[in-house]
Amino acid sequence: MILDGIGLANKIKNEVREEVKTLKSKGITPALRCLVSSNDKSTRVYLNSIKRNCDKLGIDYAEVETNSKNIMEDLKSLNEDDKVHGVMLMHPVPTGVDEISLLDMLNPQKDVEGRTPKNLGKILLDIPLLVPCTAQAVVELLEYYNIPLKGADVTIVGRSTTVGKPLSLLLMSRNATITVCHSKTRNLIEKTRHADVVVVAIGKAKMIDENWIKEGSVVVDVGINVVNGKIVGDVDFDSVSKKASVSKVPGGVGTVTNAILMRNVVRSAKGM
Amino acid sequence: MILDGIGLANKIKNEVREEVKTLKSKGITPALRCLVSSNDKSTRVYLNSIKRNCDKLGIDYAEVETNSKNIMEDLKSLNEDDKVHGVMLMHPVPTGVDEISLLDMLNPQKDVEGRTPKNLGKILLDIPLLVPCTAQAVVELLEYYNIPLKGADVTIVGRSTTVGKPLSLLLMSRNATITVCHSKTRNLIEKTRHADVVVVAIGKAKMIDENWIKEGSVVVDVGINVVNGKIVGDVDFDSVSKKASVSKVPGGVGTVTNAILMRNVVRSAKGM
Repeated sequence: MILDGIGLANKIKNEVREEVKTLKSKGITPALRCLVSSNDKSTRVYLNSIKRNCDKLGIDYAEVETNSKNIMEDLKSLNEDDKVHGVMLMHPVPTGVDEISLLDMLNPQKDVEGRTPKNLGKILLDIPLLVPCTAQAVVELLEYYNIPLKGADVTIVGRSTTVGKPLSLLLMSRNATITVCHSKTRNLIEKTRHADVVVVAIGKAKMIDENWIKEGSVVVDVGINVVNGKIVGDVDFDSVSKKASVSKVPGGVGTVTNAILMRNVVRSAKGM
Repeated sequence: MILDGIGLANKIKNEVREEVKTLKSKGITPALRCLVSSNDKSTRVYLNSIKRNCDKLGIDYAEVETNSKNIMEDLKSLNEDDKVHGVMLMHPVPTGVDEISLLDMLNPQKDVEGRTPKNLGKILLDIPLLVPCTAQAVVELLEYYNIPLKGADVTIVGRSTTVGKPLSLLLMSRNATITVCHSKTRNLIEKTRHADVVVVAIGKAKMIDENWIKEGSVVVDVGINVVNGKIVGDVDFDSVSKKASVSKVPGGVGTVTNAILMRNVVRSAKGM
């Protein structure tokens, strides 16, 4: 089976479109603001794709350009602006600015990427509200395809704050037994080979092939790598798909992630 | 080897005692307040042991008796009182009161048990400040005995908000490969038998015996169960200690936990 993200993403987006309509009929236009201090190419590409999604769904989108001198003040203004429902603090922040302090400042109710300490802590307390979109996308993609999680052995490769760590907590809550692996893990292959579900989020193109995977298991590929101008995942799709279900890249987790970001903006606008 | 908590607990307490002296010389008396709404026997026993520790170390201790009507107002007063550095919201809270809302209200800088969403989220962000004392105690006990954690396979049995979940994050940061098991885990014995370190926090007296454990591994027992008037852990000490290193119960993790609580009060008093 191939885990395609497009069907799920469209389902989420359709719901979002309806909710935007309802909100607008009440005089509320969901609004997202991106606080941008760097203009590198990958940030630009990402911002353009967010803008496109917002435009399609009727969400008001704008960028606020800032710099090391103004970033705190600009964030404060966005926090206080009642017309702004979602705020994305674009990474990287300017040199000399402490990203954690900014995250600590960001109003958790506008934190549509689920990056603030408070929103991350709520995952641990099992009352998730605004959750890192990629971690949430992995869970919803698995659920969309009715992959059993209760009692399943899930191996997560990668321990980032945006994917591995929050995902491990979300899956624990769904009664999976989770193992989190990373660069210091010994015998990594043993951990993936025994798993019913493997989630790969390491940023190494096509690292995982069929030798790493159990027959009949499910592999979720979070990787987005550019190789010879083409986007490929962390999983060697052609190899792994011979013996396991695999998510597509592109058109898999990333697509769902973008839809969930839009849903988070609407949730913030609704006051949850 | 037996992992005894008393040496480490005394080391921490001695440091705390010195810090209390220094703070007092500056006119600051570290103060802990326990917000108590239930008077069941186990709460009483716990409160008495906290009071004893505070008295020995020079920390000002008092209980604030409250009820469902006043608990929010009482918590707010403690939040605002500059002379109070640590606040413990005793569990259980009165019927009809939402514990999570109270935790959300508690000033994170006075949250000496590390229970607020913000402090839990900071563990996920790898900038832990005030951490659940039991989880921290397990880590420090392992480090005190120089148990290698980098690349070690650690199985945690139990996924509570106070132990299993935060501990899994703390150990990931120390480069361990962690597996978190619980009541829905299949083949639990396989997960413990393959581990270099097993941490057991399930609340079932003597559940883990030598059959569950690898020769030469390290077992940390977080359990505190009363059987025939005697305190026993979740691990069958006599059985497991034949082939593995085991922490004592009592006199193991619990003892260190109490010392860390005292240290957290002092840290709060120092403004960290």
